[in-house]
Amino acid sequence: MERYDIAIIGTGPAGVSAALTAKNRNKSILLLGSRQMSEKVAKAHEIRNYPGLPFVKGEDLAAAFRDQLDRMEIPVMESRIGAVYAMGDYFALQAGEEMLEAKTVILATGVVMAKTLPGEEELLGRGVSYCATCDAPLYRGRRAAVIGYSPREEAEAAFLAGVCSKVTYFPMYAENTDLPETVEVIREKPEGILKAETGLRVKTAAGEYPADGVFVLREAVAPGQLVPGLETDGPHVKVNRRMETNLPGVFACGDLVGTPYQYVKAAGEGNIAAISAAAYIDKKAKE
Amino acid sequence: MERYDIAIIGTGPAGVSAALTAKNRNKSILLLGSRQMSEKVAKAHEIRNYPGLPFVKGEDLAAAFRDQLDRMEIPVMESRIGAVYAMGDYFALQAGEEMLEAKTVILATGVVMAKTLPGEEELLGRGVSYCATCDAPLYRGRRAAVIGYSPREEAEAAFLAGVCSKVTYFPMYAENTDLPETVEVIREKPEGILKAETGLRVKTAAGEYPADGVFVLREAVAPGQLVPGLETDGPHVKVNRRMETNLPGVFACGDLVGTPYQYVKAAGEGNIAAISAAAYIDKKAKE
Repeated sequence: MERYDIAIIGTGPAGVSAALTAKNRNKSILLLGSRQMSEKVAKAHEIRNYPGLPFVKGEDLAAAFRDQLDRMEIPVMESRIGAVYAMGDYFALQAGEEMLEAKTVILATGVVMAKTLPGEEELLGRGVSYCATCDAPLYRGRRAAVIGYSPREEAEAAFLAGVCSKVTYFPMYAENTDLPETVEVIREKPEGILKAETGLRVKTAAGEYPADGVFVLREAVAPGQLVPGLETDGPHVKVNRRMETNLPGVFACGDLVGTPYQYVKAAGEGNIAAISAAAYIDKKAKE
Repeated sequence: MERYDIAIIGTGPAGVSAALTAKNRNKSILLLGSRQMSEKVAKAHEIRNYPGLPFVKGEDLAAAFRDQLDRMEIPVMESRIGAVYAMGDYFALQAGEEMLEAKTVILATGVVMAKTLPGEEELLGRGVSYCATCDAPLYRGRRAAVIGYSPREEAEAAFLAGVCSKVTYFPMYAENTDLPETVEVIREKPEGILKAETGLRVKTAAGEYPADGVFVLREAVAPGQLVPGLETDGPHVKVNRRMETNLPGVFACGDLVGTPYQYVKAAGEGNIAAISAAAYIDKKAKE
């Protein structure tokens, strides 16, 4: 298996910037995220303070990022990373049923604005999962509920529909859903996840919905859950000015490391993170 | 006199970014520097890792910055700031013979790569000056030497030629000079500044050149000399992740605060500095 120099998780301004700089430094990189770029970029109406691109629309900035990645020959791998494990001198990244390997990891996943649901954290790994691709096999022929925070999660629900006996989908957004007919869409806001005698239940104001597995799918996973042992401060990862986290070889940047939540701030930090990761690799190689 | 909310010193990516964000936050700003943008930007051959602008030439990035400042109605004031003084609840900026006022200051002057000359620091204020516009009156009818680190300094030498009895100019660059005929150009590298019985002498390998005043003109002044009391670390200003310096109300960003010396890193820090300065002003207003 190829062991990459740097795995970059996230395709917002921080992740894209990190990828461009890492590539420029001749590092082999694995850029993981959506090719549509982060929703926060793509959906921005107009950005007035991104230096060099006056009054740029979010969709145009996202398109410029895609174009630049293409021209720099940086592919985007659209895998959802379920967990990152420190393996000594490299990291293993769980991408669905696949494991990827990298010498260093740059976290650029954005900040999770949504609070966790009551019961979510307690039941994580005991029926609650953040990764349909990873855990679908556990629920083959059984009932799954999916709480999806963006239309992008519908693909995961559709995938589950081909594996599970029943899929109930709770969209946490206003847009219409585009799902297989076998998926039941419930337009009620989940208030929590309960443990029942058999399986779990998703509780809404209007009722309770049984499921064996409950998939909570947000654009970003809480960083402490993604990388065991990572030092965090509320929703943010603690970093120093070199974008180093408490874990050697793990760097973080962008909204994930704190306010201000601004595009160019994130891009600047991605640059720093890539240079720090490259220096870390070069230093290790000399040891 | 108008007291601006934020004075931003420097028109590289950090200063421009700070100006755009400060303007966006409805702060009154004073952007001080060259309208040609920093030399480091304008002279870059090609920048491959500035997110959103693939393979951009330095001159094109500088032009994009100028265009964006114009469209955001942010003028650039081409004054050289000789010193910044903390006056209690505001700052006074010495711009030639003029004093400017601002509630906060963002330093984005770039990093001084050149070492000081032997004798330069010891004789500063005792014949050695960093600001021709400020100190020319002291040398009216007397002899001045100018050590110019970029062709932009020639305007200062020309100004001195109209005031002093004799001006000797030492270009620290390869380009041809474009100076009044009365200015004597010496193509020898100064090795130090000496104190003589009368006045000073600029010492080169080939000889010694007497002068009453020696003007050492670099694109950037060492930050500790620019802002008395500012905490520095070698050529860099010490900041935290909010780009706050040790002096309340003074922020710094870009190459000035440390490596990596990268365009988008500087732009990202400019954004943070502007937001921190705006927050500082808003908090003060409530006190």
